[in-house]
Amino acid sequence: MKLKGNDKFIKGGVCAAKGFKANGINCGLNADKNKNDMGLILSDTLCNTACVYTQNKVKGAPILVTKANLAKTNGKSRAVIVNSKNANTCNADGEEKAMRMCELTADVLGINSDEVIVASTGVIGQVLPIEPIEVGIKPLADGLSYDGNDKAANAIMTTDTVDKQVAVEFEIGGKVCRLGGMAKGSGMIHPNMATTLNFITTDVGISVLMLQKALSEVVQTTYNCLSVDGDTSTNDMVSVMANGLAGNDEITSEGADFDTFKKALYVVMMNMTRMLAADGEGASKLLECNVKGAEDFETARCVAKSVICSSLFKCAMFGADANWGRVLCAVGYADTDFDINKVSVTLGSLKGEINVCENGAGVPFSEEKAKEILLEDEIIINISLGDGVGTATAWGCDLTYDYVKINGDYRS
Amino acid sequence: MKLKGNDKFIKGGVCAAKGFKANGINCGLNADKNKNDMGLILSDTLCNTACVYTQNKVKGAPILVTKANLAKTNGKSRAVIVNSKNANTCNADGEEKAMRMCELTADVLGINSDEVIVASTGVIGQVLPIEPIEVGIKPLADGLSYDGNDKAANAIMTTDTVDKQVAVEFEIGGKVCRLGGMAKGSGMIHPNMATTLNFITTDVGISVLMLQKALSEVVQTTYNCLSVDGDTSTNDMVSVMANGLAGNDEITSEGADFDTFKKALYVVMMNMTRMLAADGEGASKLLECNVKGAEDFETARCVAKSVICSSLFKCAMFGADANWGRVLCAVGYADTDFDINKVSVTLGSLKGEINVCENGAGVPFSEEKAKEILLEDEIIINISLGDGVGTATAWGCDLTYDYVKINGDYRS
Repeated sequence: MKLKGNDKFIKGGVCAAKGFKANGINCGLNADKNKNDMGLILSDTLCNTACVYTQNKVKGAPILVTKANLAKTNGKSRAVIVNSKNANTCNADGEEKAMRMCELTADVLGINSDEVIVASTGVIGQVLPIEPIEVGIKPLADGLSYDGNDKAANAIMTTDTVDKQVAVEFEIGGKVCRLGGMAKGSGMIHPNMATTLNFITTDVGISVLMLQKALSEVVQTTYNCLSVDGDTSTNDMVSVMANGLAGNDEITSEGADFDTFKKALYVVMMNMTRMLAADGEGASKLLECNVKGAEDFETARCVAKSVICSSLFKCAMFGADANWGRVLCAVGYADTDFDINKVSVTLGSLKGEINVCENGAGVPFSEEKAKEILLEDEIIINISLGDGVGTATAWGCDLTYDYVKINGDYRS
Repeated sequence: MKLKGNDKFIKGGVCAAKGFKANGINCGLNADKNKNDMGLILSDTLCNTACVYTQNKVKGAPILVTKANLAKTNGKSRAVIVNSKNANTCNADGEEKAMRMCELTADVLGINSDEVIVASTGVIGQVLPIEPIEVGIKPLADGLSYDGNDKAANAIMTTDTVDKQVAVEFEIGGKVCRLGGMAKGSGMIHPNMATTLNFITTDVGISVLMLQKALSEVVQTTYNCLSVDGDTSTNDMVSVMANGLAGNDEITSEGADFDTFKKALYVVMMNMTRMLAADGEGASKLLECNVKGAEDFETARCVAKSVICSSLFKCAMFGADANWGRVLCAVGYADTDFDINKVSVTLGSLKGEINVCENGAGVPFSEEKAKEILLEDEIIINISLGDGVGTATAWGCDLTYDYVKINGDYRS
């Protein structure tokens, strides 16, 4: 996938920023020994930390423990411990196990257990076996390195077919700064304040308050504009750890430095969002829906998400069928206000763009050209609602046989 | 499918009640000459009429014309004209064509064109060819009969695999009364105030006001508790026509007679809802989710619909996989308030019932028994939210390969 945005993309994921080590191993939660199931990130120094969490009332035990830890430390952390294959959610002993994971990590690293962010992903409602983690924590920590990001990124994958890592380099106050992250997909993706598991690290110096402000704002235009299947996960979390090793003057208020940081964060999170959509369970196509001319951002996002969440439209895209009536239908049931008679729609890709609807009614188009456009693997749906200034982009994917196959028997 | 409820079920669909004729023909909109595409219902006398319509901002032209007609006649109608294969929606000439259908019908029947209910279903955004309807209206009217309900029910089918008709017999004030209807599915089903196309006829004498009250109330616990794919159609409409030929004293207020009528309406609409869910596009299973212990009906319905709308849970049911964590996840993201720690869940069918979750956490169960239960074609999900008095039932279906197949290339 081609990355978008103006920043300088670099390699390294969560290890791109100064002073961050990572590692991933198979500890036995996953029977496939070639697939890591346990990951660790460690910063050389204490980090200012921001998090956003799922709004699902069912919250994974690790979410509760991470929240409590960051409350105790006033937003300071050193490490992330994460496992896949088991979400440690809806278990009577869930919090106890999540706290145990923090303790194990703290002990082996010689840090305070409150400074550990803990996360789990996988099947909901199966008791988490703690023994593999107890045994695995030592080799996991022993293998930490400044280029261990690929191993960690592999550890958080579940039904993902590829890992998701993005990192950028930029300057603040003459200092070279870096920010990078890793994310997992690829089902139960319909973020509400956060999505899925997502770990971001940076060497920028920034206060906890401003870091949280940047994250809470950027999540609105990135992960919260993403849907794979309409299901909001119980274990969603995005964390950003900033260790300040870049040496810039700490960002403590709005201004040019904050804007630069926020832009870097946006580029990383936006590209990660696109990766998550493109690798949605069973997906063969990335769908990007751009809405403009809305009264405000919320209206635009509501309409864009309605379109990329429509099962019928998603199936039509799988079939490369220019059934634009389904776009307009989904626009129409978006729970927000606008004049349907001013709506225009185009469908596009690298092969060109066609008008399919103007002022709420269909216009003639070449079915042959439409087919050529829709056979591409990145489809752009541009919608104009009228003459407002609000814009938003939402990302999703098509609905395919493989989505059904993957989810018809996920547990086994 | 076994019908539920205590009333006396009878044959006849929209012709079950006294004084209603119907017919259906193929006029050429559908290339398959064995499939009707144009249907007509006629009452011997003028009917008090109630309707509910889709809340989608994109409204099919027939919806707008029917609304305008009933406003002009103060809720009186004589006939329904309906076509399938083309929704006559998002077309610049849509209203003109829908009015033309009313005029053609009125002319051939010798009634006023304002007394005609018009409806269309099929592809959105393709211009409706009026010629086949102009030619077909005469033979359609000539073939009207008091047992033409099957032909009419066939005419409104789109991707339906079976027609949907229910009728009941009951007594009001010593008079034998009848109420029956027909509905179509089977995709773009996520009602909001009404669902899909649904025509109900009765010989009960009841005022327009009380008829509308009964319909508006019953739709809340039946069609508005149904979802096949989360897509609210542009052409949804339920109409009830009451011609009073049963001879009862006209129902003009609440009381025992109104309750009897409302119960009959509920039984017909509830069973039609179940038929629509069971024949959802590609469906192999009917899912029924009963929620109890909620603070009120709205809370219960919100949770029940959240579960039957979850793509992940629908896939699990297709795979007969007792992945109850997905039930709890969907309960958790329902947009309403309750204590997740009091939630209990059972899964059942004709083969028995198993507890899978109590007080928000998993309980051990036999996977073998679970498989046996979930291989049935009607699955019951019982959820208790606590100790409130609110209950609701929602209906849906599994998500299968065939749903994707049907909708990957619907237009061709």
